[in-house]
Amino acid sequence: MPDQPSEHSHVGRRGGPPNTGPAPELVESGFAWENADAPYLHDGLNLADIAHVLDLDRRGLLPGHARDGLLTVLLELTTVAAREFPYDPAYGEAYNSRERYFVERLGDDAGWLHAGRPRREAARVALRLQLRREVAGLVHDVTAFAAAACGLAGTHVDTLLADQTYLQQAQPSTFGHYVLSFAEPAIRDAQRLLTELAQVNSSPGGAGCVNGSRLLDDRSPLAESLGFGSVIEHTRDAMWRVDELIQVLALCSSIVSNQTKLAEDLEIWSSAEFDFVDLDDSFSRASVLMPNKRNPYSLSIIRGASGILIGRLSGFLAVTKSPSARSDNFIFAYGEVPRAVDLCRRVTRLSTGVLETLVVHPGQMEAALLRGYSQATDLAEQVTQACGVDYRTAYLVVGDVVREASAAGRPGWQITAGDVARAARERTGREWDLSRLDVPSLLDARSIIESRRAEGGASHAAVIAMTRSTRHRLDDLVRRATVQSAAFERSEQDLIATARSILTGART
Amino acid sequence: MPDQPSEHSHVGRRGGPPNTGPAPELVESGFAWENADAPYLHDGLNLADIAHVLDLDRRGLLPGHARDGLLTVLLELTTVAAREFPYDPAYGEAYNSRERYFVERLGDDAGWLHAGRPRREAARVALRLQLRREVAGLVHDVTAFAAAACGLAGTHVDTLLADQTYLQQAQPSTFGHYVLSFAEPAIRDAQRLLTELAQVNSSPGGAGCVNGSRLLDDRSPLAESLGFGSVIEHTRDAMWRVDELIQVLALCSSIVSNQTKLAEDLEIWSSAEFDFVDLDDSFSRASVLMPNKRNPYSLSIIRGASGILIGRLSGFLAVTKSPSARSDNFIFAYGEVPRAVDLCRRVTRLSTGVLETLVVHPGQMEAALLRGYSQATDLAEQVTQACGVDYRTAYLVVGDVVREASAAGRPGWQITAGDVARAARERTGREWDLSRLDVPSLLDARSIIESRRAEGGASHAAVIAMTRSTRHRLDDLVRRATVQSAAFERSEQDLIATARSILTGART
Amino acid sequence: MPDQPSEHSHVGRRGGPPNTGPAPELVESGFAWENADAPYLHDGLNLADIAHVLDLDRRGLLPGHARDGLLTVLLELTTVAAREFPYDPAYGEAYNSRERYFVERLGDDAGWLHAGRPRREAARVALRLQLRREVAGLVHDVTAFAAAACGLAGTHVDTLLADQTYLQQAQPSTFGHYVLSFAEPAIRDAQRLLTELAQVNSSPGGAGCVNGSRLLDDRSPLAESLGFGSVIEHTRDAMWRVDELIQVLALCSSIVSNQTKLAEDLEIWSSAEFDFVDLDDSFSRASVLMPNKRNPYSLSIIRGASGILIGRLSGFLAVTKSPSARSDNFIFAYGEVPRAVDLCRRVTRLSTGVLETLVVHPGQMEAALLRGYSQATDLAEQVTQACGVDYRTAYLVVGDVVREASAAGRPGWQITAGDVARAARERTGREWDLSRLDVPSLLDARSIIESRRAEGGASHAAVIAMTRSTRHRLDDLVRRATVQSAAFERSEQDLIATARSILTGART
Amino acid sequence: MPDQPSEHSHVGRRGGPPNTGPAPELVESGFAWENADAPYLHDGLNLADIAHVLDLDRRGLLPGHARDGLLTVLLELTTVAAREFPYDPAYGEAYNSRERYFVERLGDDAGWLHAGRPRREAARVALRLQLRREVAGLVHDVTAFAAAACGLAGTHVDTLLADQTYLQQAQPSTFGHYVLSFAEPAIRDAQRLLTELAQVNSSPGGAGCVNGSRLLDDRSPLAESLGFGSVIEHTRDAMWRVDELIQVLALCSSIVSNQTKLAEDLEIWSSAEFDFVDLDDSFSRASVLMPNKRNPYSLSIIRGASGILIGRLSGFLAVTKSPSARSDNFIFAYGEVPRAVDLCRRVTRLSTGVLETLVVHPGQMEAALLRGYSQATDLAEQVTQACGVDYRTAYLVVGDVVREASAAGRPGWQITAGDVARAARERTGREWDLSRLDVPSLLDARSIIESRRAEGGASHAAVIAMTRSTRHRLDDLVRRATVQSAAFERSEQDLIATARSILTGART
Repeated sequence: MPDQPSEHSHVGRRGGPPNTGPAPELVESGFAWENADAPYLHDGLNLADIAHVLDLDRRGLLPGHARDGLLTVLLELTTVAAREFPYDPAYGEAYNSRERYFVERLGDDAGWLHAGRPRREAARVALRLQLRREVAGLVHDVTAFAAAACGLAGTHVDTLLADQTYLQQAQPSTFGHYVLSFAEPAIRDAQRLLTELAQVNSSPGGAGCVNGSRLLDDRSPLAESLGFGSVIEHTRDAMWRVDELIQVLALCSSIVSNQTKLAEDLEIWSSAEFDFVDLDDSFSRASVLMPNKRNPYSLSIIRGASGILIGRLSGFLAVTKSPSARSDNFIFAYGEVPRAVDLCRRVTRLSTGVLETLVVHPGQMEAALLRGYSQATDLAEQVTQACGVDYRTAYLVVGDVVREASAAGRPGWQITAGDVARAARERTGREWDLSRLDVPSLLDARSIIESRRAEGGASHAAVIAMTRSTRHRLDDLVRRATVQSAAFERSEQDLIATARSILTGART
Repeated sequence: MPDQPSEHSHVGRRGGPPNTGPAPELVESGFAWENADAPYLHDGLNLADIAHVLDLDRRGLLPGHARDGLLTVLLELTTVAAREFPYDPAYGEAYNSRERYFVERLGDDAGWLHAGRPRREAARVALRLQLRREVAGLVHDVTAFAAAACGLAGTHVDTLLADQTYLQQAQPSTFGHYVLSFAEPAIRDAQRLLTELAQVNSSPGGAGCVNGSRLLDDRSPLAESLGFGSVIEHTRDAMWRVDELIQVLALCSSIVSNQTKLAEDLEIWSSAEFDFVDLDDSFSRASVLMPNKRNPYSLSIIRGASGILIGRLSGFLAVTKSPSARSDNFIFAYGEVPRAVDLCRRVTRLSTGVLETLVVHPGQMEAALLRGYSQATDLAEQVTQACGVDYRTAYLVVGDVVREASAAGRPGWQITAGDVARAARERTGREWDLSRLDVPSLLDARSIIESRRAEGGASHAAVIAMTRSTRHRLDDLVRRATVQSAAFERSEQDLIATARSILTGART
Repeated sequence: MPDQPSEHSHVGRRGGPPNTGPAPELVESGFAWENADAPYLHDGLNLADIAHVLDLDRRGLLPGHARDGLLTVLLELTTVAAREFPYDPAYGEAYNSRERYFVERLGDDAGWLHAGRPRREAARVALRLQLRREVAGLVHDVTAFAAAACGLAGTHVDTLLADQTYLQQAQPSTFGHYVLSFAEPAIRDAQRLLTELAQVNSSPGGAGCVNGSRLLDDRSPLAESLGFGSVIEHTRDAMWRVDELIQVLALCSSIVSNQTKLAEDLEIWSSAEFDFVDLDDSFSRASVLMPNKRNPYSLSIIRGASGILIGRLSGFLAVTKSPSARSDNFIFAYGEVPRAVDLCRRVTRLSTGVLETLVVHPGQMEAALLRGYSQATDLAEQVTQACGVDYRTAYLVVGDVVREASAAGRPGWQITAGDVARAARERTGREWDLSRLDVPSLLDARSIIESRRAEGGASHAAVIAMTRSTRHRLDDLVRRATVQSAAFERSEQDLIATARSILTGART
Repeated sequence: MPDQPSEHSHVGRRGGPPNTGPAPELVESGFAWENADAPYLHDGLNLADIAHVLDLDRRGLLPGHARDGLLTVLLELTTVAAREFPYDPAYGEAYNSRERYFVERLGDDAGWLHAGRPRREAARVALRLQLRREVAGLVHDVTAFAAAACGLAGTHVDTLLADQTYLQQAQPSTFGHYVLSFAEPAIRDAQRLLTELAQVNSSPGGAGCVNGSRLLDDRSPLAESLGFGSVIEHTRDAMWRVDELIQVLALCSSIVSNQTKLAEDLEIWSSAEFDFVDLDDSFSRASVLMPNKRNPYSLSIIRGASGILIGRLSGFLAVTKSPSARSDNFIFAYGEVPRAVDLCRRVTRLSTGVLETLVVHPGQMEAALLRGYSQATDLAEQVTQACGVDYRTAYLVVGDVVREASAAGRPGWQITAGDVARAARERTGREWDLSRLDVPSLLDARSIIESRRAEGGASHAAVIAMTRSTRHRLDDLVRRATVQSAAFERSEQDLIATARSILTGART
């Protein structure tokens, strides 16, 4: 006989909250992990709780004694640092420790805090309050980095440097033109951050668990009281969206990706063999064994942080590869995202300091250029126009010239018209009329650079023009970021002041 | 005696281009890798070359015969598919194969093509021409996905569903509210893509090697001839920036991250045990062994692609962790980035198809809701207001009620005022006055949902309002993306037409 | 005139250690980062320092007063926790704070500690001492996880379960067979860890900066005094190798990758709709808003940790994408690697706890199986043999039977020979002789399972055999890991005892 | 009235295979993706199918005509390349195209192939057959790389080089000691690969869908016929384990991580400014614009590949972050893993070629050393022992000496005892007795190197000893890998020969 539905009596599935405390394994993994993030959420939770109490009060949803008790304790907490608050994994995550604390202080009145709001809404609000400050701060830091690059560019607009590809000398350029190129990606990323800040600074408040709350008709007052620029409309989206977190992490990674390129260049250039630059003592480190060492330690920090941030981004993306509405998406965001932004900020300020104090050796840069052949392309281009030969042929001939000069130990600036004529004859079998070419002046690095007059080129005028426009763009960015930061600060102060005045009013 | 500078005679460092062909190991690694990307660059290289020839011609920098020869061959190539062109790693990367082909066809005249422009500029232009089309296309695909979600939401605005967290029933909601939540991140990512498209569609043309070109006074004509929206000013930045590539990859990852959440939900819900949804046959797959199987194969594809794209992003970020101006940043971008965008597009269209044909089982969703206790929060909230008890106490009492009902096998909708009263008595020792509460109607899922009237909630009106505004936003996005796509197409056609007319003019 | 080597006078490159303290930006980035890792290095640095002093003493390289002073302070420190030691980023990284402390305590005598050993050697030794304990501990944790899976398998060797692919019922199996499959990858990873432990437990000591030390003839005594199993021969390799760190991180990622699959399965199965399993209360969490919720929070922790560890691995790999001998490779390893191992250990213990307390609902599993058609493959296989038709045809016919039964709402166990005969006729136009088939008994899930007698199959005997052999393998692993852990502990105690006795001897 | 279970009539869930073909969106995403991997599975599928037919035949489970037909077609296919077989996404993935082809050729007889074996088992076997060859091949490639490093080390055992940290000269060493350090991680990874090969070369055959097969009593014959070294016992594990794939990818990443460090070093050292090494022309590339350029293109390929492989690993790990038994784990492994191994092999051979043809400039290396102060540590150490001062004090004094010499432009080898005495007096206020020190000979780089006699040091004897033992270890690795490769080849030939003889026997 086949198996038929058997009489396994299924003792009804257990509904309702668990009856026991957490297992030690859970305390040591999940709750310990979450508690370590409390410092990033503490201030924001205080503000979120105050705003929620005021919102409930506005709607007449909690008794006066509960409101007053909660506000009293919460206002106290705004002056208590996270490390002084009894956060303890044994009680659960940060919110649970707070709940326990409120009950100790207020008894049942503490229970009104949870009306119409899941734990997760409070934490989501707190994360956004933390992130909006830090993202705005990061805009400031990134623009300061770009300003430092721009300042250095202004100083070195005439400092000769053979720009490199594959670390091989390519063409004559200047250190000013070079270093200014790091300002550009920084500015773009700062602009992207500002755009994203509008998403970060949106209110998830009043979303209830996921479908909205029966207690609220209108989610704007809460948003306004916390200084959010808008309300995230769809309540399920409000609770669970992670796309701006992905963006913020991707931008952190991009920002330091730009700096790490600069850091690797500077490390190479601060070798004794290049000796193009030197880090200031205060950004270097001694060895404890080797008395000869003066290590550009700062550059290692920048480079390592770049790798770390790549991992923070890919790790978070892997975390969010889950079904929808899964708590791990945030449990593992509350600390990871603020820490990543914090690391990005610290490293960006380090990069700025490195640039601001960088010792540049123009003589070494020029000497290296003059030992090489970076003028060869211009020679070939001039030959093309003067002799009417195609570029590929001119290239091949000049390539032969370089090979010969190099074998003979003669630097590029010593190449002569005769060298070219001879090479042309050998490779093409024809005589080239080079009489229209003043080869020596044509090989002059400064003249070559000055020929790059079109927008964005290395000529003095083009770089000066770029530094000017860059400064304007930076001023604009700083202004916009400052407006945001100030608004965040003010709205948070206003919220606390309102809570105080309500409490005072209640007492009198 | 100490070591002193010895007489190692350093045979002068070899300058100038290499004299021999590539080693087989190099052909099989680097050149084979690069040639595999030729299909992504082929059309763009044709256009970049045509525009460059026209630009040189405009400036009087190449002889008429060279111009005509090059244009003739290049116009021919615009009708030749990449797979029919003799790309061959033995000659180097794609550009080298083209160079060789041009020389075969035109002899020395082919050499004029290289005037004032490194190989890398051609490839950078080609990458951008490819990417701008694909990014605009991706905006179309992502909006179509959001539209499908929105359409399904409209159909199921009244389809009861217990929304879940941790895959545990949370609160009564609707399938319409649920599915609409996936439109929101899609729309945000589509907007970010459109913003980024302006960066992608900027011209690196005329940047010379890195410092600008002596041959050009003005980089705008080239940019305009290719339909670029702007010129990337700083020439070194123009050659080496990768930040928009990082952004595009991050957005691809983010876009599919949203879809993978939906896919994982649908996979769970299409199990026999849930049976909430069923994929259309055309998005399912049979087993070849098990005659009972009808597998939601499409969802595996979406989920796997999400993982792959996380790797493509982190891999590219690791590639760009290098000194500045390193060719690997692009050698490993020319194919990786277009392929990632292509995968993202295909998978997004797959997700759209899954949604458009999804079979939804409202009866099963409702039955599951009615077996559960997702109404409990509303009961507790009502008790709070009706009895003046704090939320925490109400929560504890209702939690007891749920536990009892669950143990007794009674579903949530059968809970009575008596249950609550008894539990309150037991837990608090007090009598609660529940006379103001009509418990049965309060446990009605539809009434609960209708109480979520604030913006973004699950009530009928709120969801209808959101679907309307979503459709407007989508129309706007589609319009903007269409304008872009059309402009790209038109400018490329114009460029070819111009080349043809110059050639015709030259011949007549 | 061309540019010629100009008279930029290059003020000699600054050699020797920096003269000033670190910039605040550096303290807040690099030194703050490194100091946060002090707790992971503290004990190991104490031991490394003691062993180094004893080694110098053995070779007669330091005066008695210096030896005694250093040993006195170092032995004191073995009883001081990291958080009580004055580590302070203002002084540099952890080693610098220690150096400063030793000077405060001992004056110039402290300076003998640095003879023949760079800071980095001390830290490398400390990292390995920390890691070897934790890796051995992780072997214990992973085997405990496998043992829990094995134990559960033993209990449920006869608990029917329709195994699934794509979350669709595939074939009849048992929960025992299912859960035992998670032991296998765990055992393999534990074995890999033990293999790798031999690499971790190798001594870099005596490598000098990079090329060896003039002060040592023999690097074995130091290695033996610290309980290292071998000496890393090549001194440059000894200082800079990271491959075992990559391996350890990859294994952590792999270990939790296995657990996350189990966790996602359990999350799905603990839904009300499946109701196959229930987590113990102590591994669940309540909502603070929703009184109905009992959330399998532990599973979120496992899943999230899996994502985090993917990021830790890819981040570290990105860090090591650098030139050789770069300090960032370790600055960003000292904390990242131990933290990752620690997270892996905690999460593995959590997974073990989840399994050990898991409530399984055999009745629900069986009922779900009996509602479905997972017997279909066996039916087709029997038809193949009984009727001599090829498998594909049998598959198609049985597929039709399943479609019909499903449309009619009849479960698989109710399929009859008549159903098959009719479907065969309709699809093939032929009559099949099914008289040799006892279809009902053939559809019996238990009989099907018992037919899987070959090694590794789901039959009772095969699973019992596997649980037995698994337990033997686990016993062996535990034994080997215990030997290692004990040896580490003993050698560290011996080192401290030796130091004490030398000091006592010196004093007497 | 509350909502009660309503009369939504649930039309029975659709059981059984889908009735329609795939949607275009699915063909263009999933099936196109899978078909692109056919070249990696084609040969293995042929062998897997032949072995399965022979196994069924051995057990008397298929008719002679079916056996002969299948073997005839399959033997034909062993001579057909993947690109010539009509794989077409329109039919599904590769297995579906084959199924279709077999039906075309053999009619219903083709259907016997599917008896007792799911599509996935065939693909799993094919993947392992492909991987075992490639992994063994990779062991060969990695040992060849290590041999090249070892060979170069032997040549340059006396080539002076100041080893560097932070790219700052650290201590005198040799290029031989330096380059040999890259052999060590390569050897360790090769050993890990060989260990892992035993896992890769295990048979999943006979696992049925997941719970075993009713048709087989014994899974060994199939495993033996394919040359697998063992049978994966647990059938569910056999089908779904991914841990060896993670390991293989992690090892590929680790292998190239080692090479990328070398490549970055060589790129820096092949700059004109260092000029320590030069790549052979055949591993370099010309610019098409700049006639001066000779680019170390190979190094860019190595570095970029390192980044790509980091992404392939993290992407695959993200793919496997799923519930258990999910097809995406393999759909996205069939191509990704073999491609990653292939890239790793090509790049490893490239690195080997770079080393084998590397032009080393000993004179430049020595000159750079002599310009610097890398002897300073030895000076301080000698002072310590000669004067009885602690190392920290000696370090500070020598640091002062270096600073002064450097400011005066005097290189390290010109430092005198007087310099030390003066600096000691100024810093310590004491006179140091330096009479026992022969400072000049003490500063001799070769003497310093020769003092590194302990195992693994840079002295001539120590490096020679290491090259010898390295060669022995490499010989052993090569021998073991060759045994494996040969066994794979032989077993595959034997299988084909067996099939041929059975077919011939059947025909006669």
